[in-house]
Amino acid sequence: MPLRFAVPAGKSLVTCLIAGLFLSATAYAYAKAKAKSAPANVTQVAQASKLNLGDIVKNSSAADWRPLDPDNTLYLNLEKGRVVIELAPNFAPNHAKNIKALVREGYFDGLAIVRSQENYVAQWADPDEKREVKTAKRKLNGEFTVKYPGNLPFTRLPDVDGYAPQVGHANGFPAGRDPKAGTAWLAHCYASVGVARGTDANSGDGTSLYVVTGHAPRQLDRNITAVGRVVQGMELLTTLPRGTGPLGFYEKAEERTPIKSMKLAADVPEAERSKLEIIRTDTATFKSIIEAQRNRGGDWYKVPAGHIDLCNVPLPVRPQK
Amino acid sequence: MPLRFAVPAGKSLVTCLIAGLFLSATAYAYAKAKAKSAPANVTQVAQASKLNLGDIVKNSSAADWRPLDPDNTLYLNLEKGRVVIELAPNFAPNHAKNIKALVREGYFDGLAIVRSQENYVAQWADPDEKREVKTAKRKLNGEFTVKYPGNLPFTRLPDVDGYAPQVGHANGFPAGRDPKAGTAWLAHCYASVGVARGTDANSGDGTSLYVVTGHAPRQLDRNITAVGRVVQGMELLTTLPRGTGPLGFYEKAEERTPIKSMKLAADVPEAERSKLEIIRTDTATFKSIIEAQRNRGGDWYKVPAGHIDLCNVPLPVRPQK
Repeated sequence: MPLRFAVPAGKSLVTCLIAGLFLSATAYAYAKAKAKSAPANVTQVAQASKLNLGDIVKNSSAADWRPLDPDNTLYLNLEKGRVVIELAPNFAPNHAKNIKALVREGYFDGLAIVRSQENYVAQWADPDEKREVKTAKRKLNGEFTVKYPGNLPFTRLPDVDGYAPQVGHANGFPAGRDPKAGTAWLAHCYASVGVARGTDANSGDGTSLYVVTGHAPRQLDRNITAVGRVVQGMELLTTLPRGTGPLGFYEKAEERTPIKSMKLAADVPEAERSKLEIIRTDTATFKSIIEAQRNRGGDWYKVPAGHIDLCNVPLPVRPQK
Repeated sequence: MPLRFAVPAGKSLVTCLIAGLFLSATAYAYAKAKAKSAPANVTQVAQASKLNLGDIVKNSSAADWRPLDPDNTLYLNLEKGRVVIELAPNFAPNHAKNIKALVREGYFDGLAIVRSQENYVAQWADPDEKREVKTAKRKLNGEFTVKYPGNLPFTRLPDVDGYAPQVGHANGFPAGRDPKAGTAWLAHCYASVGVARGTDANSGDGTSLYVVTGHAPRQLDRNITAVGRVVQGMELLTTLPRGTGPLGFYEKAEERTPIKSMKLAADVPEAERSKLEIIRTDTATFKSIIEAQRNRGGDWYKVPAGHIDLCNVPLPVRPQK
């Protein structure tokens, strides 16, 4: 049985993308794992959850999901397929607006992925730095944090985080929060999308975007404008050959991956849209997912972690029902 | 300037692999960034470091580095190049020994990478499950934790970790530690290598190995035998096409990546070895690296994190001098 590893494959159709793992529904009996030790951050000995991600998703109701908003969903169309990105206008309103303007004027069409750095980011831009910006702004102030959007539910993780006073999820996005300062910000997790900038904090405008392709570089939080996340198609970006130049930039033009086009979903005929729905993060179901992942049960896990890192919380995505 | 992002490329020749980022020597003046906020886990307001990784490495002495031990270094030879893996016999003595026996009897030669799951692991094994084991053992007890090896220096990180009472580095490996239980274990970071197993805790034997290719799945810590880490060649594994079967297994034989051979460095003629040295983790220099990464300075960073995640600590590797 050399192929053995982890729990067996589930039957769920959910594409679980993929701030975490997809250890889906199993045929095994629940919760045989016994807690053997308690991590530092829990006061009680961790107990294996009686639920698992796959079953929670399977038993979820329609109200536990929301469709992607076509007005805030971008398609990065590559030769090999489509990368679906959801913007987070609550966290970076001006940048989200400007990126939509750039997309609508066709700014990215025919440009390229210019950089792929191992365990860090892939980045796209105009490699010749000649593309004209027509309607979008060329100067924006950084949106590294926002005043906490009070109307946006925040499902706080129960565990400690080293990078932020509080972490959790708001409308499907991993985020940090500082109650004393009254600020919130998108966290740099795997699949997070941000706006490249120079040393000037206000030098990013959305003409060059990056996606995190490695272990979460959370030190970027509050230092650069994060603007959304990839919800489908990460494998199109993570498997790109790494650039051999400094910072993973490609050294030759032919090494770059061309961008066929970048479109706002709302501008694409409905029949051609990627109709996806994502788990809502303001529900009891989502809290169950977090608990199940904090203390994984089933036959395979022997020691529940009693903890989950913000960037390991799964955010399931599936075809819209 | 659409290509702008992060600090500029350094001049260091160090291949910084790659539990962290490679933000190398910069031409900028130091420490202009001002601390603007303090994360929850520090009692003082974070101050930007006056040092940076690139300069610390540049100014390091020969005594800050150690060569890879040929008796504990494996070469996974693929058509596109060599993946260099260092075993950690202090943490998994029986598995390290058994894997070396498997390698020496040629067990992996001609087998294949059978699985690549997005943001999780790549795994290699005998896809036909027919390869005979000659001299190695077919049954080993799991080595999920070890009695803390008292003779092995442990450079503890100053920050909180959600998955372990203490985390730090021992002989170049990221590790967790539980002083009360007197145990230690390798942490599952990006590039960590482990031994696949079934639901039986003692069912892994080293005939199927995995490497972490995504955000650290630390929930695996203390649940499976981690045995080492990739120190060079991660990009050969992370860029593999993802498998479309359950758990990222390839569905067709031709999708798999063949393994030309797997060798112990000591068995390879000296002229053909990858002569690398890795930063020592029991030195003042390494502590400086940690401090510089906890509170990155330079012109680019505006808000030092005041924290570093275990799996974001860089472990520089370079050609042996």
